[in-house]
Amino acid sequence: MSTSESPVTRIMLAVNESTIRGYPHASISSRGAFEWTLQKIVRSNASGFKLLFLHVQVPDEDGFDDMDSIYASPEDFKNMKNRDRARGLHLLEFFVTRCHEIGVACESWIKKGDPKEVICLEVKRIQPDLLILGSRGLGPFQRVFVGTVSEFCVKHAECPVVTIKRRSDETPQDPVDD
Amino acid sequence: MSTSESPVTRIMLAVNESTIRGYPHASISSRGAFEWTLQKIVRSNASGFKLLFLHVQVPDEDGFDDMDSIYASPEDFKNMKNRDRARGLHLLEFFVTRCHEIGVACESWIKKGDPKEVICLEVKRIQPDLLILGSRGLGPFQRVFVGTVSEFCVKHAECPVVTIKRRSDETPQDPVDD
Repeated sequence: MSTSESPVTRIMLAVNESTIRGYPHASISSRGAFEWTLQKIVRSNASGFKLLFLHVQVPDEDGFDDMDSIYASPEDFKNMKNRDRARGLHLLEFFVTRCHEIGVACESWIKKGDPKEVICLEVKRIQPDLLILGSRGLGPFQRVFVGTVSEFCVKHAECPVVTIKRRSDETPQDPVDD
Repeated sequence: MSTSESPVTRIMLAVNESTIRGYPHASISSRGAFEWTLQKIVRSNASGFKLLFLHVQVPDEDGFDDMDSIYASPEDFKNMKNRDRARGLHLLEFFVTRCHEIGVACESWIKKGDPKEVICLEVKRIQPDLLILGSRGLGPFQRVFVGTVSEFCVKHAECPVVTIKRRSDETPQDPVDD
């Protein structure tokens, strides 16, 4: 059972930005799932685990994401893409920095697409031992309108999945916010 | 993050008997979930965890469980109940013995009732950090007929839940068996 005998446990965490504070701030549920992982699973055994942080950016299909900017050349669009990427990296920096402080190995990367589908595809590619997802813990009525990534992944991801609900004292006034 | 600073992580595992070999043998999915917990979560950090084994016995409503026995007095029925209890204890003995060998703290107990409902009630009472359930990993067609405890608990248990599917090389000829 010692670490030298068995390969490290690879835990994938899907993380996203705060809907209230925006980049580079992590959402309440992402931070909650991360802290839970450290406190309840990794504990003092940092060398036994590797954390894999995936951030999925939703492509801005209609281009209305940044109404105040002026796009005059292909270069401007390229800059916008670079800026999005930079914002995603700042989000990941928060998690990677915490891991380094604690001494737990990690990797992080960004993908574009529909979060629930990209997460399941990345699980298939990476084959982690466990996928940990934060969840807003919405009721059935709210779920109809916003959909939930975690419900989809629990059903379709090809590895064990655990969903960590937000603590009630951390839930914002509008529970759809995160 | 050291163990002395944070309380142990309390993991509840619901375990049942083999449908093929009967008591005292554990089901394939129970054993799988237990081994996964040791290998991937507890690892070498035995002192950081406490495992809580719950075995739910389904009451024998129609009394046809034991066709060859003769019941002549209330005493016979009492003996039957004691025998059922003893069988359940033998099942739990397997898990408790393994935990003692590894040096991880544990507790185990038996309840009667509908497994999915009793598991959720016990989660409410015990408040574990995580509930780990073995699953046969049945397809949608088979699930309609046999129901699944894990799906119910993922939805209704008031703690994080992770479902560990059986490895395909351990699935019996009839996947409903376990």
